[in-house]
Amino acid sequence: MNIFGAVEAGGTKFCCAVGTGPEDLRAEVRLDTRDPVQTLAAVVDFFKQHSDGLAALGVGSFGPIDLSCSSATYGHITTTPKPGWSNTDIVGYLQSHLDMPVGFETDVAISALGEARWGAAQGVGDFIYLTVGTGIGGAVVSNGQIVHGLLHSEIGHMRIPRVSGDTFAGVCKYHGDCLEGLASGSALQERWQMDPEKLPADHIAWQIQAQNIAASLVNLIVTTSPRRIILGGGVMEQQHLLPLIRLNVLKLLNQYLHVDELSPEHIDDFIVAPGLGNRAGMLGGLLLAEKAWKCA
Amino acid sequence: MNIFGAVEAGGTKFCCAVGTGPEDLRAEVRLDTRDPVQTLAAVVDFFKQHSDGLAALGVGSFGPIDLSCSSATYGHITTTPKPGWSNTDIVGYLQSHLDMPVGFETDVAISALGEARWGAAQGVGDFIYLTVGTGIGGAVVSNGQIVHGLLHSEIGHMRIPRVSGDTFAGVCKYHGDCLEGLASGSALQERWQMDPEKLPADHIAWQIQAQNIAASLVNLIVTTSPRRIILGGGVMEQQHLLPLIRLNVLKLLNQYLHVDELSPEHIDDFIVAPGLGNRAGMLGGLLLAEKAWKCA
Repeated sequence: MNIFGAVEAGGTKFCCAVGTGPEDLRAEVRLDTRDPVQTLAAVVDFFKQHSDGLAALGVGSFGPIDLSCSSATYGHITTTPKPGWSNTDIVGYLQSHLDMPVGFETDVAISALGEARWGAAQGVGDFIYLTVGTGIGGAVVSNGQIVHGLLHSEIGHMRIPRVSGDTFAGVCKYHGDCLEGLASGSALQERWQMDPEKLPADHIAWQIQAQNIAASLVNLIVTTSPRRIILGGGVMEQQHLLPLIRLNVLKLLNQYLHVDELSPEHIDDFIVAPGLGNRAGMLGGLLLAEKAWKCA
Repeated sequence: MNIFGAVEAGGTKFCCAVGTGPEDLRAEVRLDTRDPVQTLAAVVDFFKQHSDGLAALGVGSFGPIDLSCSSATYGHITTTPKPGWSNTDIVGYLQSHLDMPVGFETDVAISALGEARWGAAQGVGDFIYLTVGTGIGGAVVSNGQIVHGLLHSEIGHMRIPRVSGDTFAGVCKYHGDCLEGLASGSALQERWQMDPEKLPADHIAWQIQAQNIAASLVNLIVTTSPRRIILGGGVMEQQHLLPLIRLNVLKLLNQYLHVDELSPEHIDDFIVAPGLGNRAGMLGGLLLAEKAWKCA
């Protein structure tokens, strides 16, 4: 029987795993993200130690990344602001050192794949996975497929209206006050000058945060009409935030879309927490590996 | 040989046609949109006069509409603010009076289908069609398929940042200053108290308009990563507007997405005018009819 390898390549950690699913994870490791050479060498080491039956890898990476098979830089991280990581050929490195098929997607896309198979989007072919952590990213799934044409989703860089009276400039190096610039963990840290985990639940910060995230969800709803939205990431671990976001989504929609799913009675089943917590990416990576193996 | 019927159901006009494509349109009519009974009776009359070989209809309607086959109100216009048209069973009426398969989609979705086959999106499987007219609507196409999960796109109701210093309240009955509330033809009329067609090309109105539309395009780009965006509708007939929108999209993206298609050299091929002008919907309706016939 084939087993598969997953790499969730993040700006802080590279999480690697070997197995076939949530009940069959044979090894896992969390590596600090250092420079590309050190980090990718450690990834290769891990998989060489667990190469018995290993058939393929699935890599979900922070981005932007190049997913265009016909491109000279396919499999690269491209223009990331993360120092040292611009133009890093992740897929090429792993293929040349491990000699097996390597599937490649965004980090949020593999989380979406994991949630679709084993988590909060089982049986839901049209949904959105949004992660609100250090940065903000998202994946759109339509008819069971990740949506990406030219590039891939970069939902963190959506523009949203400013909350009334809010003058915070935002932290995005490219856009200032885009969604990520206003509502990522980094933005909260900069805005309130403290670790967002330590902000009390009744702090005005969370009202603003809920309004900002809700505005982005409304934009996603009117654009792709998902059947469910999964909100993951470190910032969403604040338990009081999800209900506040739901309220603000209802308020912003203002009953324009008459479907049960977007009513106060059912919104809790429409905007949900991940079913797999922070394991969605790793598990989705195994699915991506399986797909790469089948297509190879 | 089968021929097909198309209905582009708009708030002002119902355009009907019979044929198989742009080179074979056998009859066309533009009917004023009156109340549902009068209007739909006139539609039925038209198709009864041209029923020779007529195999199926394709209807693209203003909305919101119910596209869920399992719903009791499938084929209805649902919550439209248009007086008299809420809860109108368009598909049921046409099926019962014409006894043939009836395909049903949004008005913008059939325009997208037409553009994909014969217009500005030929060979482009991932694109967005946005119409800026009396209202604003859009359709997302991914892998050649219209994206709709729960409902359908309602891109006109996206929220965007306000242009600096702009205090116009917006005209959307549900949301005030959503995209449609700020940038539709109705909004321009209300904002400038004159027919937008008569606003001079150097009027500040067009700078604001271009910024508003550009913000929505950036949000579409970061959400679904289309390979092309087609901008149709009456407001876009102002020839000076499209170049201004392109400039503002580039400015807002601020070189975050490093792909040739989003560079100043290639943006003219990325954000484009419709290839079929205002015939896209009617022609797409024929394709929808053909699909309904094949699936029946």
